[in-house]
Amino acid sequence: MQIEAFAALAAKQQLVAHEYEPAPIGPRDVEIEISHCGICHSDLHLIDNDWSTSTYPLVPGHEIVGTISAVGAECELSVGQRVGMGWQRSACHDCDLCRAGHENLCLKQQATCVGRMGGFARRIRADERFVFVLPAGLDAAATAPLLCGGVTVFAPLVRWRVQAGARVGVIGIGGLGHLALRFLRAMECRSTAFTSSPDKRAEALRLGADDAASSTDAREIRAYANSFDFLLCTAPARLDWITYLQTLKPNGTLCLVGVPPGLLQIPAALLLSGQRAVCGSDIGSPRDIREMLTFAAKHAVGAEIETVPMHSVNAAVDRVRKNLVRYRMVLTN
Amino acid sequence: MQIEAFAALAAKQQLVAHEYEPAPIGPRDVEIEISHCGICHSDLHLIDNDWSTSTYPLVPGHEIVGTISAVGAECELSVGQRVGMGWQRSACHDCDLCRAGHENLCLKQQATCVGRMGGFARRIRADERFVFVLPAGLDAAATAPLLCGGVTVFAPLVRWRVQAGARVGVIGIGGLGHLALRFLRAMECRSTAFTSSPDKRAEALRLGADDAASSTDAREIRAYANSFDFLLCTAPARLDWITYLQTLKPNGTLCLVGVPPGLLQIPAALLLSGQRAVCGSDIGSPRDIREMLTFAAKHAVGAEIETVPMHSVNAAVDRVRKNLVRYRMVLTN
Repeated sequence: MQIEAFAALAAKQQLVAHEYEPAPIGPRDVEIEISHCGICHSDLHLIDNDWSTSTYPLVPGHEIVGTISAVGAECELSVGQRVGMGWQRSACHDCDLCRAGHENLCLKQQATCVGRMGGFARRIRADERFVFVLPAGLDAAATAPLLCGGVTVFAPLVRWRVQAGARVGVIGIGGLGHLALRFLRAMECRSTAFTSSPDKRAEALRLGADDAASSTDAREIRAYANSFDFLLCTAPARLDWITYLQTLKPNGTLCLVGVPPGLLQIPAALLLSGQRAVCGSDIGSPRDIREMLTFAAKHAVGAEIETVPMHSVNAAVDRVRKNLVRYRMVLTN
Repeated sequence: MQIEAFAALAAKQQLVAHEYEPAPIGPRDVEIEISHCGICHSDLHLIDNDWSTSTYPLVPGHEIVGTISAVGAECELSVGQRVGMGWQRSACHDCDLCRAGHENLCLKQQATCVGRMGGFARRIRADERFVFVLPAGLDAAATAPLLCGGVTVFAPLVRWRVQAGARVGVIGIGGLGHLALRFLRAMECRSTAFTSSPDKRAEALRLGADDAASSTDAREIRAYANSFDFLLCTAPARLDWITYLQTLKPNGTLCLVGVPPGLLQIPAALLLSGQRAVCGSDIGSPRDIREMLTFAAKHAVGAEIETVPMHSVNAAVDRVRKNLVRYRMVLTN
């Protein structure tokens, strides 16, 4: 049976209704009846072919929540389970990285909606190893954005051992940043929100930040000199990295989860004195996603969302493009 | 009793015999009768006032080994013990970093021969909290360079959890790099030496490297794409950081222990894809130094040295300036 979806037929185009014939269900594949799908900025980049990896027709969508409607012969998951799926749809399961549980770093990994149809659709078929059972109690709509945006900020906090009591700066308070503030509050960390939108400062406090400052005014940033154990930058923007590095305590780490344009230009002496580190983090592994979902259920962490019916996808995408959404857009079937 | 030493009386000058009146021995101070003192490139920078921190007369020397000849009223160390001392001579012992055992990152730390007289001398008085008992079996001359150069390469390997079996690249095979190769061999890691001196390639294998390559020929470096868990850069040189970052496996770390001139210019995408990190490391804490000395004694790790009598200090400094020493110069009393 054909799958009803919304697709871009060429770069930068509006999405149109599009039906496609799914691949047969393999032994470890499941079919998900999609109830919700978040819209991530990556979807816009895919629609626009900003990364030169897009093929058309392109069905975006990789923050998927739904219910399993069919399973392959060797599946551990079952029909009727409520599940989620994120950016990654496959890995080799055979390399050192996969065997160590770092499937998100597998050199043969594939993405949910690169070269295959994503979640702006009624259904999707997927490898169950990248499909995750949602713990009871999680709200489906508010959980959809956790599957990509959520784990992207949660995984580095865990990997870099950010502990209760740590002081953490979050740069950029949007889809990712607002989730970081909520996770950090639940982790009992003290967070500072850096935002370029003055109206988001009060918002940031409501979302869990202990204080808020400008992300672009060097004087305001400098007031936090030598303050943070960890800085998480969710803004894909060219920022004043030198001033931000100076807000790190000795042994502190600046972690990028968005790709700023151009080159980072950093004086090495800033890394040596104080043993600072600059690193990147790339979504999260299946293990990270499971850990995040368990944590989110325990601490009632979900995204702050707008919902729009799937058939109004173009209006929804447009609001994301214009940065109007507070803080994540979720399509509903 | 005055202390006989060798001092620069102004920047970039030859050293001359110089006697000075030491400060009284404080309750936690010891006096060390110096038997050996290594010459580190930092000593040359201090003599030349390259960092604008030097005061004259300046007695260099911070890779000190000797025997305790006097102790203050509250000392735990005793007269007659064989000890070493390195770059750091004091810290506040009261800040979060000091209390956590990271005295080397204390914002109030002071250096052995910045604003105070160093180890190119017959004796030195020092805070016993930065004086370390040498385990039996360590050769005094070969151990002197461990007190600064050794811990500078050992501490980051421990801090970044470099494990047996790890693949590690060492960039720059000099005073620090040759010690890194020896420590890595003892840690059962597989190391690759990157050097700009063709004649050091065979040397590097003798010192413990598994293989060796050019540190400046991008084609040779590129052959190690996706190979290393850890890259330790001891060369204070402007290098092809992008190509080096590409030699890291996912989750790999590039650690700088020398300060290259200019800015590091790094595409953020190289940090995100593969979750790579770039960091610096700054000498080591007293705990690191003790751990290193214990490790060095257990695995018979010492520097490969030339020794020169203290009174020929200018000839010795000259050989260090000309990069003629294989691999560390040690002055003897």
